[in-house]
Amino acid sequence: MSRLREGLPAEAVLTDADVLASYAHDMASFCPAGTPAAVVLPREVEQVRHVLRVASELRVPVVPQGARSGLSGAANAVDGCVLLSLVRMNRVLDIDPVNRIAVVEPGVVNAELSKAVAGHGLAYPPDPSSWEQCTIGGNIGTGAGGLCCVKYGVTAEYVLGLDVVLADGRLLSTGRSTAKGVAGYDLTRLFVGSEGTLGVVVRAVLALKPAPRQQLVLAAEFASSAAAGDAVCRIMAAGHAPSLLELMDRTSVQAVNRMMRMGLPESTEALLLAGFDTPEPGAELAAVGELCRAAGATEVVPAEDAAESEMLLAARRAGLSALEAVKGTTMIDDVCVPRARLAELLDGVAEIADRHRLTIGVIAHAGDGNTHPTVCFDASDEDEARRARQSFDEIMALGLELGGTITGEHGVGVLKRDWLARELGPDALELQRGIKAVFDPLGILNPGKVF
Amino acid sequence: MSRLREGLPAEAVLTDADVLASYAHDMASFCPAGTPAAVVLPREVEQVRHVLRVASELRVPVVPQGARSGLSGAANAVDGCVLLSLVRMNRVLDIDPVNRIAVVEPGVVNAELSKAVAGHGLAYPPDPSSWEQCTIGGNIGTGAGGLCCVKYGVTAEYVLGLDVVLADGRLLSTGRSTAKGVAGYDLTRLFVGSEGTLGVVVRAVLALKPAPRQQLVLAAEFASSAAAGDAVCRIMAAGHAPSLLELMDRTSVQAVNRMMRMGLPESTEALLLAGFDTPEPGAELAAVGELCRAAGATEVVPAEDAAESEMLLAARRAGLSALEAVKGTTMIDDVCVPRARLAELLDGVAEIADRHRLTIGVIAHAGDGNTHPTVCFDASDEDEARRARQSFDEIMALGLELGGTITGEHGVGVLKRDWLARELGPDALELQRGIKAVFDPLGILNPGKVF
Repeated sequence: MSRLREGLPAEAVLTDADVLASYAHDMASFCPAGTPAAVVLPREVEQVRHVLRVASELRVPVVPQGARSGLSGAANAVDGCVLLSLVRMNRVLDIDPVNRIAVVEPGVVNAELSKAVAGHGLAYPPDPSSWEQCTIGGNIGTGAGGLCCVKYGVTAEYVLGLDVVLADGRLLSTGRSTAKGVAGYDLTRLFVGSEGTLGVVVRAVLALKPAPRQQLVLAAEFASSAAAGDAVCRIMAAGHAPSLLELMDRTSVQAVNRMMRMGLPESTEALLLAGFDTPEPGAELAAVGELCRAAGATEVVPAEDAAESEMLLAARRAGLSALEAVKGTTMIDDVCVPRARLAELLDGVAEIADRHRLTIGVIAHAGDGNTHPTVCFDASDEDEARRARQSFDEIMALGLELGGTITGEHGVGVLKRDWLARELGPDALELQRGIKAVFDPLGILNPGKVF
Repeated sequence: MSRLREGLPAEAVLTDADVLASYAHDMASFCPAGTPAAVVLPREVEQVRHVLRVASELRVPVVPQGARSGLSGAANAVDGCVLLSLVRMNRVLDIDPVNRIAVVEPGVVNAELSKAVAGHGLAYPPDPSSWEQCTIGGNIGTGAGGLCCVKYGVTAEYVLGLDVVLADGRLLSTGRSTAKGVAGYDLTRLFVGSEGTLGVVVRAVLALKPAPRQQLVLAAEFASSAAAGDAVCRIMAAGHAPSLLELMDRTSVQAVNRMMRMGLPESTEALLLAGFDTPEPGAELAAVGELCRAAGATEVVPAEDAAESEMLLAARRAGLSALEAVKGTTMIDDVCVPRARLAELLDGVAEIADRHRLTIGVIAHAGDGNTHPTVCFDASDEDEARRARQSFDEIMALGLELGGTITGEHGVGVLKRDWLARELGPDALELQRGIKAVFDPLGILNPGKVF
């Protein structure tokens, strides 16, 4: 500890047991968290390098953290580790409208960046649901997605270059500040989604887009998952480019009604929300409304303006909190399937919920086939917690069976470690471990995560 | 050789000396090419696996090849190697309009894929200039770009998953068939741009986009590079999303005039072409025309329809051939700079051309800051060839000085190997070599390329 304190201001090192406990885990239920030795809150790159140098010297594990809003335990402490929280490195260093890039420190909150670039007529599209809390560093670590990704893509597509402190304290620059670049292997992309296991991101060059227009939203109700899934397929096959295409199943609609008294139709099996930020969104809504009707929508409600659009979206935004309120604890899955298999996934999840006598609500980025089946359970009820865990795993198995992946945007962390091996198979896993060893030969960076 | 022939049909193995010589190199001047032992033209994955197994066993180098339209010597033979040409593996295996993916073999020609998906109202955007010859496997190997990338992005953004035969013959599947996915390190992206040094791509899952509308093009002439560069900056800073934004300098305009008698203005210092495929391209052309005039354009010519647009683009498309005609041989650089530095690069290249008494024409994907300074020289004139080589290097040095990269979309190959080390620095290079060793411990895959 004294070696650690040497290169750091006193206020940057926390060791109080209660404080340590409060930093020890992210938002994932069921994920074990160890007891950290210290929390370090650097403000400068040099301080991060000092921490890694000392950690390498003394073989102490280092767990990088952002806002700890993650859902897979990737930021959870391991015993005796240094929790390296990057939240104080939160400066937007540059916004360049001509080159359409922003240069930021990792602790910048996603929403703060959005606000900062909006003043220049620009947008940083990736918008995880936690965008008001989560940090860009965390977004990069998990390869975060969000609602608008169906049109604008995920975090990985917006990271052009990185400064990364390596396990031994060396500072590496990857990538570029240019629109294109293919000089050597794409180390930048390797760090995106690597959950702090390969290095600590201390600076990022991000691509920006021109700010989109205000979107107009349509809501459509369906009497079956199959019909809603069919609508999604028709919309995408017809070549539409929605700025969001979200789905809520009956369980989540009912949960939102209970919490917010929104008066959503209790009888609906699936509620589809489609948004368009094109120059003539009204025309798109009309066309998409027709496709929904052709797929069997029982009701189609196009918003007339931005305010109505926001009202329709409010239900979606409240979804997760509403499901959390059902039983106190939730476990949020993140299975992404080819969008043509969406209905099968929804029906499969309903069957799993029935069989385990559980409430599982599904909220999905339907346009991406990315679903969040959310298992609601009472953590104090041992049997229910066991069934919750069992159903969570069965949902992943179903996702793989349907040609999907165990994680579309939340990452692996500790929650899905065993499942990663199952998805990748032994050869890919061996190569991934080989890469890990190249970057972190001593295994001090976020050990026990991902693999 | 007999071990090699065992698992292959007779017609798949070529050893005639003239044939070998014709396969020994790609389109890059100045790049040494060795003498191969054989050309193998597999039709099946199992045949590729056989080649790699034998090569590993006998420690024989393997050089994967597509159409050999590359510009950096990445596909050039090394002495005693097996040239593994994937051009006969050219089937489009699946086109799925709902999930917007295509599954293809590596030998599919870019233009053939475009044609195949167009029938489904879809597009595969990356459009290298060689799109009528180059293969998807080659595009993946180099991380190819093109004209439309300023709006639609480069190859890397369209590769969702790969099947790759590893150095020892194992078959690896990476990535996914879903829109999102963050399960483990991004091996897919690692293979993109790796120039056949990590494995042999035998199947790719590619993302498709809805087919864009017909684009409308505007041409603008400028009396200085600075004015043209300023126009590019104004267009991008104003939030426009051109489907192409191309620039030709005076040298390339004059070369096109000479070859095609197009009657382009000989006095122009820079010709800018901007295209828009938005619902109302006429309005965008008007706005962009105004920005060009504000930046000092001496003439602005908006096309009225598709035919006029094609006429304006014909000059751009003829650019490289016209420059080739100047002196018989060209060496095409591929320096990408932040777009705000474009004018500085153009002026710097002009200075380099003057100093070395050479003709160097610049054609640029201006919207991306990606320039192709093309050194025209007489290969039989030793002194001129030396000066060409020298100027080529000075252009890369200038690109790095301006915050750019030595290669935006053509790759490193053998041509820029020394320059890669300079761009990356020793730490990044060491990590890249470490990754190479994980995938190819015996060093049989395209040895001497990239590093």
